[in-house]
Amino acid sequence: MNDTASQTFLVLNGPNLNLLGTREPETYGSVTLSEIEASSTAHAAQTGYALDFRQTNIEGTLVDWIQEGATSAKGIILNAAAYTHTSVAIHDAIAAINVPVVEVHLSNVFAREEYRHHSYVSDVAAGVICGFGPHGYILAIDALVGMLRDQS
Amino acid sequence: MNDTASQTFLVLNGPNLNLLGTREPETYGSVTLSEIEASSTAHAAQTGYALDFRQTNIEGTLVDWIQEGATSAKGIILNAAAYTHTSVAIHDAIAAINVPVVEVHLSNVFAREEYRHHSYVSDVAAGVICGFGPHGYILAIDALVGMLRDQS
Amino acid sequence: MNDTASQTFLVLNGPNLNLLGTREPETYGSVTLSEIEASSTAHAAQTGYALDFRQTNIEGTLVDWIQEGATSAKGIILNAAAYTHTSVAIHDAIAAINVPVVEVHLSNVFAREEYRHHSYVSDVAAGVICGFGPHGYILAIDALVGMLRDQS
Amino acid sequence: MNDTASQTFLVLNGPNLNLLGTREPETYGSVTLSEIEASSTAHAAQTGYALDFRQTNIEGTLVDWIQEGATSAKGIILNAAAYTHTSVAIHDAIAAINVPVVEVHLSNVFAREEYRHHSYVSDVAAGVICGFGPHGYILAIDALVGMLRDQS
Amino acid sequence: MNDTASQTFLVLNGPNLNLLGTREPETYGSVTLSEIEASSTAHAAQTGYALDFRQTNIEGTLVDWIQEGATSAKGIILNAAAYTHTSVAIHDAIAAINVPVVEVHLSNVFAREEYRHHSYVSDVAAGVICGFGPHGYILAIDALVGMLRDQS
Amino acid sequence: MNDTASQTFLVLNGPNLNLLGTREPETYGSVTLSEIEASSTAHAAQTGYALDFRQTNIEGTLVDWIQEGATSAKGIILNAAAYTHTSVAIHDAIAAINVPVVEVHLSNVFAREEYRHHSYVSDVAAGVICGFGPHGYILAIDALVGMLRDQS
Amino acid sequence: MNDTASQTFLVLNGPNLNLLGTREPETYGSVTLSEIEASSTAHAAQTGYALDFRQTNIEGTLVDWIQEGATSAKGIILNAAAYTHTSVAIHDAIAAINVPVVEVHLSNVFAREEYRHHSYVSDVAAGVICGFGPHGYILAIDALVGMLRDQS
Amino acid sequence: MNDTASQTFLVLNGPNLNLLGTREPETYGSVTLSEIEASSTAHAAQTGYALDFRQTNIEGTLVDWIQEGATSAKGIILNAAAYTHTSVAIHDAIAAINVPVVEVHLSNVFAREEYRHHSYVSDVAAGVICGFGPHGYILAIDALVGMLRDQS
Amino acid sequence: MNDTASQTFLVLNGPNLNLLGTREPETYGSVTLSEIEASSTAHAAQTGYALDFRQTNIEGTLVDWIQEGATSAKGIILNAAAYTHTSVAIHDAIAAINVPVVEVHLSNVFAREEYRHHSYVSDVAAGVICGFGPHGYILAIDALVGMLRDQS
Amino acid sequence: MNDTASQTFLVLNGPNLNLLGTREPETYGSVTLSEIEASSTAHAAQTGYALDFRQTNIEGTLVDWIQEGATSAKGIILNAAAYTHTSVAIHDAIAAINVPVVEVHLSNVFAREEYRHHSYVSDVAAGVICGFGPHGYILAIDALVGMLRDQS
Amino acid sequence: MNDTASQTFLVLNGPNLNLLGTREPETYGSVTLSEIEASSTAHAAQTGYALDFRQTNIEGTLVDWIQEGATSAKGIILNAAAYTHTSVAIHDAIAAINVPVVEVHLSNVFAREEYRHHSYVSDVAAGVICGFGPHGYILAIDALVGMLRDQS
Amino acid sequence: MNDTASQTFLVLNGPNLNLLGTREPETYGSVTLSEIEASSTAHAAQTGYALDFRQTNIEGTLVDWIQEGATSAKGIILNAAAYTHTSVAIHDAIAAINVPVVEVHLSNVFAREEYRHHSYVSDVAAGVICGFGPHGYILAIDALVGMLRDQS
Repeated sequence: MNDTASQTFLVLNGPNLNLLGTREPETYGSVTLSEIEASSTAHAAQTGYALDFRQTNIEGTLVDWIQEGATSAKGIILNAAAYTHTSVAIHDAIAAINVPVVEVHLSNVFAREEYRHHSYVSDVAAGVICGFGPHGYILAIDALVGMLRDQS
Repeated sequence: MNDTASQTFLVLNGPNLNLLGTREPETYGSVTLSEIEASSTAHAAQTGYALDFRQTNIEGTLVDWIQEGATSAKGIILNAAAYTHTSVAIHDAIAAINVPVVEVHLSNVFAREEYRHHSYVSDVAAGVICGFGPHGYILAIDALVGMLRDQS
Repeated sequence: MNDTASQTFLVLNGPNLNLLGTREPETYGSVTLSEIEASSTAHAAQTGYALDFRQTNIEGTLVDWIQEGATSAKGIILNAAAYTHTSVAIHDAIAAINVPVVEVHLSNVFAREEYRHHSYVSDVAAGVICGFGPHGYILAIDALVGMLRDQS
Repeated sequence: MNDTASQTFLVLNGPNLNLLGTREPETYGSVTLSEIEASSTAHAAQTGYALDFRQTNIEGTLVDWIQEGATSAKGIILNAAAYTHTSVAIHDAIAAINVPVVEVHLSNVFAREEYRHHSYVSDVAAGVICGFGPHGYILAIDALVGMLRDQS
Repeated sequence: MNDTASQTFLVLNGPNLNLLGTREPETYGSVTLSEIEASSTAHAAQTGYALDFRQTNIEGTLVDWIQEGATSAKGIILNAAAYTHTSVAIHDAIAAINVPVVEVHLSNVFAREEYRHHSYVSDVAAGVICGFGPHGYILAIDALVGMLRDQS
Repeated sequence: MNDTASQTFLVLNGPNLNLLGTREPETYGSVTLSEIEASSTAHAAQTGYALDFRQTNIEGTLVDWIQEGATSAKGIILNAAAYTHTSVAIHDAIAAINVPVVEVHLSNVFAREEYRHHSYVSDVAAGVICGFGPHGYILAIDALVGMLRDQS
Repeated sequence: MNDTASQTFLVLNGPNLNLLGTREPETYGSVTLSEIEASSTAHAAQTGYALDFRQTNIEGTLVDWIQEGATSAKGIILNAAAYTHTSVAIHDAIAAINVPVVEVHLSNVFAREEYRHHSYVSDVAAGVICGFGPHGYILAIDALVGMLRDQS
Repeated sequence: MNDTASQTFLVLNGPNLNLLGTREPETYGSVTLSEIEASSTAHAAQTGYALDFRQTNIEGTLVDWIQEGATSAKGIILNAAAYTHTSVAIHDAIAAINVPVVEVHLSNVFAREEYRHHSYVSDVAAGVICGFGPHGYILAIDALVGMLRDQS
Repeated sequence: MNDTASQTFLVLNGPNLNLLGTREPETYGSVTLSEIEASSTAHAAQTGYALDFRQTNIEGTLVDWIQEGATSAKGIILNAAAYTHTSVAIHDAIAAINVPVVEVHLSNVFAREEYRHHSYVSDVAAGVICGFGPHGYILAIDALVGMLRDQS
Repeated sequence: MNDTASQTFLVLNGPNLNLLGTREPETYGSVTLSEIEASSTAHAAQTGYALDFRQTNIEGTLVDWIQEGATSAKGIILNAAAYTHTSVAIHDAIAAINVPVVEVHLSNVFAREEYRHHSYVSDVAAGVICGFGPHGYILAIDALVGMLRDQS
Repeated sequence: MNDTASQTFLVLNGPNLNLLGTREPETYGSVTLSEIEASSTAHAAQTGYALDFRQTNIEGTLVDWIQEGATSAKGIILNAAAYTHTSVAIHDAIAAINVPVVEVHLSNVFAREEYRHHSYVSDVAAGVICGFGPHGYILAIDALVGMLRDQS
Repeated sequence: MNDTASQTFLVLNGPNLNLLGTREPETYGSVTLSEIEASSTAHAAQTGYALDFRQTNIEGTLVDWIQEGATSAKGIILNAAAYTHTSVAIHDAIAAINVPVVEVHLSNVFAREEYRHHSYVSDVAAGVICGFGPHGYILAIDALVGMLRDQS
């Protein structure tokens, strides 16, 4: 692991999360992904961590980035969005690395369609945080910090 | 929405549709995707619309393009092929935009394997046209034109 | 096949479609079945076809009419409504005849109750058109005309 | 709604209920459908309502009558018998009208075969009464009277 | 039971069986329903029974006829065709009468679609004969004759 | 059975029914459980019966009370609320006693979540009344009175 | 095929059928398997065929015998009893040979436990006869004779 | 709501959580429920809230307490343990109140038995936090504080 | 573990077992739970063990008692009755303790309703004894004695 | 029943039980089937019964032996091993005889693979004993002795 | 293990494989099982191994032979044919021995009936080879040789 | 097909296979994908074929490469890893080309999670090889060589 990794969390956002805030504000609120990045980065800084914050619509790119996080980061915060429910590839990537992954969802997926109740991420994640909107990213940072503190 | 959008339909084709006509002609006929593009473009022109006609084998690229269509087109014609049956990501992209999406399939998917009977596209599509071969694209254009005429 | 058949499409409407327009206009719109018959007949006339337009609430009568259409019509447009989801008898009638049947639904059945997602009509239909409201009948006529043109 | 409607309940009985009393008396008791009609009519008269009491073995005829009841009656009592478990058409007819429908079953359908545990009527009915034998029709009349009293 | 009943078998044929022989001869053979009636009637006559041979496409009419058979016939031969797989009403009619019902199918339904593997008729039928083509009607007559001989 | 039993109905209410009227009045109406008790008691008195009206949030207490009702009451009216769908223990208690139990639900459970469509109470209840709001308790009293009258 | 084959039907009986008649006579009647063999043999003789009548409790022996029947008999009558519902091996043996196999069951398996409703024999059998008791073997002989007559 | 409520969070722990720490330390760690209460209370105090921390093995008592929390607390943290997966009663209690409920689990339930993957709590909870051990209670307090801050 | 524990078995009986013998004697026999306690206690005494014999209708009380048994007894005999099939809480309590638990059922639960075929107790029990009536308690005592003898 | 039968229990062991003790001792212990036979025989002798102890890998042989036990033994102890979960033939053999059958399993099958949770033996067995290792055979002997004592 | 074992592979073939080549050559090719034995034996000889090549239609005999292979062979090649999909007994035999078992199928079972997609052999086999026809036996020999080479 | 194709096999590896050897060596062994490429290439060279060996984490890229293989290679060896279980797109690509595809898996997928037991690749693959680790690639090369030799 390189030096930067010891001070970085990788924050990965999946398909359609780039549309946050600019569309369907009545449902998803008016906060954009950039604003989540800004507030999360500020909060992380207070805990002594930098964030590497990314978004992609491609499943395989999430796999690439999770693999990359194994050496570039101390922890991963993953909001895989729709791929949460369909991607065995992401499941396998998480299972293959040693860095803790915290699963985050903005909305309460359990109150939505049946097919969103199953997650291929959860059983290999360190933990799950869901339903708290943008605040979930803050909680995930705190969860990672707590976990790393316990291990050291 | 920019000016071009008011005169454009985005036509998106999913995995393996690039093989149309050149392979398995006994099953899929001898019409190529290029020929479908040509005949569809000609028909659209008669109704006053241009077509932006594309194909990709990558799920995330379809998500990108659907998002793009939200501002670049008046309507989307989507033949998601195999991703129709597995992609929650495409479902979410369609749900996130306001432009009407018409789902098209060349073959009668309901007369094929069980796993092709479910579509993640249908419940967020404006409508579904399936089983009419290349002619389905013509009908989809007419459907979009009719829909836009009713709204105006 | 008699002479009239070569110029006629049989349009069959199933249970409760006689209530269209006069009830629940907020859901089904204010267009009545008579108005659909009128606009469809006008459109068909432009393509050189007459329509034999009927409605019944009885499953067996739909079976009778589909059998009749085998000799009296060049094509059948079938909106079997509720029987779509429960009638093996209608499925068998369609399978037994050589005239192409186009399945039409006014609403997007895939966005409704789970039990409306399966159709006993689809796998023996020539094609399916659903979700476009009354305009779906126009598209079905065009689909049949296109199909017959290709065959001749 | 015509004048008679304001004083009439339509009582609809489905397949095989015409056999009541004359067959399998050890199971269904010795009360005939005519006797149920007589006792129900007498009870309804006490509450100020007339009954329009009918039986048919044909699913589509039940659909016809339910539609008819929308204008000819203040309420409908429906014992759809076997069609309860298979008829989406009856479900749709009830959903299409504004007159309250009370679902009645003579036997306790929940103590019988698995396929009798689901009803296509229940979720669109105003309420369900089951297992009380012929007395269920009396209770259904009282239920309708109570409902109409609350609304007025 | 009237006098004729003691010498009559009721033979009931369900939806689309009227098309036998004239359509899809490669599948169903070239024997028409009339020819089956003729050969069956001849065979029954040898055993001392007359046949009352009917066909309908309407589920409720089959229910009517089964009820009628309770007093007009010594036994019923029922080929309910598509309604075999969907009709609880026919199941209940058979359960309500004391005359033995023999279920017949021309084709081997167990070698066809999954939804044809379940029969609502079988568990209340005296027995089942399937897969022997028109010869199945002859076997059903013999089965009924044998059953009645054993009871007397 | 003691003397009081011959004049008493036990009315048992399950979890969260104590909240009726004071919360979510837009859904459950403004009638409280106390008011239901009052109106039911008044109606029962007219039929010559007293009510023993109770509520608990504990499954086992409902089992206790049902057992108690076997000797203390002539009939039981049971609105087991949420435990309806999960309690085999309540099912067994009802099956173990000889006093008739009428199942009541305020709302139409069949129009709610899938897991509310199954009842462990129904198949051992004398009958079911559901969807009529507070009036259901009145109907249940009448049902019990009718049942007891028939038996005497 | 040897000479005897042209005049022989192989009749194969599966597990526990050797107990017929001597046990549970109230259920299975008092007819023994030997008596069925005797009456069947007599009937077959009238049609010009000898019977090779056997019973075993071992699945693999039934497979052996079915294979043997391919050359030693003109047709096979198979009552596989319990193995009907579990044996893919018997299914494959029947599929591998060209001699017609008629499936016979004494009782109406469709009126028994759920797991007896599926047969691995039916879809490869020429036809099925079930529910007629010992008479079913007579009908099966007639069915085979009819089939062979049609082919010659 | 009384005055204390504005400064109190109710923390409810379900069956077997009283055994934490003293048993199976290799699985659940050596932290006892008392220690979780202590650390949670300390953390809550820093945010200006008191905790009302309880444990019970009885489902109905959890229902009682959730109802009580509607007026006695500003938010509820619920670790329903085993009842999470079986209790519709708890689901209904949460749905009936207006106070936000945060669902917490010590272990990652999604990595355990299939029947622990479904929660009757999640779809009515404000959010879910799972897999972070005792630290999950701290995160839940922060989540509630954040939620209340956003609303004020 | 205290001194008494080394000589005591805890025998826990779930809902409705208090009704044994006094009700439905044709089904459950005329032996009461008190008589089972007496005969079991006598048998246990011969093996050198005392019994702590209890019954409750409340799921959570069974959980309490199982936890208590962890220190008060050498083994637990558990007839959880209806809760056997629904209680994850009881499952978790058994999994949390080190004392062996023998599951007992009076009746053969596998010959009853489908939902009684699954037990949440079995996979964490030391063993299962079912179908032997009151004698099952004697066998369970012997099983525990044997188990403890093997361990010492 | 012959004289020996009145003093004999038949003990039948299914596939792979001949490997006990010599293989996988860490899982199945070091006790061989011969040792189980020896200890069981000794215990049975104390109760006045001889054992006829057998093992086979062939399903049909188990059927043969169960049938044989109907006259040669007073009771049968059956460990059908793998055939427990797949053999309808063994189920039918047990159902066909009047001698009580006790089902025994060495391991706790309910804590193993899902497909071992269902037994075709249980619902026709007199009772089930599972999870107690070799001691289960001793308990089964006692169970049979107790059963026979109650009947005499 | 005896001396021969170190140089022998046991090749076991299940039901109906004795019919290979002589029947249905259009499906299974014209290669007989004897020819497969010959070519496999020749290939094995080149790798220094002898083959013990057998076929049976009896499930229990396959179990016997697998047990025998534990001491008589260095590896087992198993084509269990139909028993692949139904035999827990064969599964258990493989699990009980230490010799590696390679599962072979001539046809691509995954392209056939649904019930052939599950194998009770696969999860305890060392590996699976399917779809390559007779060549699969050659590959299985090479696979075993490779495995043994890696271990030595 | 170009000249190179006649001497090349395309070897495609899916998501996370790039991590082989460097991570989780206790599970996947210490062999890297590069080493597999080296040993496979050497083996292929001996059979006269070159390998075009690739890896990607993106589903659509696998589709691209399979299409490319249709003209660039004589055969394809496909280890689709996680996409095996979710990708209809890969299924369709294989079905669309004429080059034989051999499915390979390093681990025994049938001994892992339920969702890894289904493969969208298998039914369109020429054959399947699984569970043999890196040696599986060698076997797949031999399988392709054998297949091509048989065809020529």
